[in-house]
Amino acid sequence: MYTGTHLLADLSGCSGLDDAARVELALREAVAAASATLLDVRLHHFGPGQGVTGVALLAESHISIHTWPEHGYAAVDIFLCGQSHDLDAALAALSTRLEAGRCDERRVARGYGLPD
Amino acid sequence: MYTGTHLLADLSGCSGLDDAARVELALREAVAAASATLLDVRLHHFGPGQGVTGVALLAESHISIHTWPEHGYAAVDIFLCGQSHDLDAALAALSTRLEAGRCDERRVARGYGLPD
Repeated sequence: MYTGTHLLADLSGCSGLDDAARVELALREAVAAASATLLDVRLHHFGPGQGVTGVALLAESHISIHTWPEHGYAAVDIFLCGQSHDLDAALAALSTRLEAGRCDERRVARGYGLPD
Repeated sequence: MYTGTHLLADLSGCSGLDDAARVELALREAVAAASATLLDVRLHHFGPGQGVTGVALLAESHISIHTWPEHGYAAVDIFLCGQSHDLDAALAALSTRLEAGRCDERRVARGYGLPD
């Protein structure tokens, strides 16, 4: 049975990836854009000029981001259960806030008893 | 450039998926089995008999789990950067603790400038 869609996105050419406040804002904007329900948001900044790890726990699963500012690269995953949430809008919000120049994405259907 | 591997696993036939303490233990055992560095662990229990959402933030990215006890189903993702960490051991730890009867997994290479 279908449970949800897991979107993996690699964002390149980004700005502000060493700015924890900006990464948190991007996460929160993605949650709002998806019309998802935020339970908790946790960030870890590895230090000045370094990357940020952030996760938004959602009633519908999660959105995570890990950044490598030295490469302008961020690895994002957006996992939303149910069919009424907008993954594209969430990804667009992240890409816009982080000024991504390129976005490579893959989508994986998640659930139990899915056909092989 | 290769950054890490993102493993998505669908666990079926599991036990204890409405037990937040057991889910947290499974997460912590997975982190230890992977030889990863735990920064923070956050769980949300949706209520008695209901599912649990949990995320372990790691220096190497994250491990997440979302459970549907009514279906014995758990959606797991294990994203570990670098090449010295053991994703298989992490997944085995989760599967063992949750007594999964079946595990369907997919692995995705993450990073910037990967070939299409």
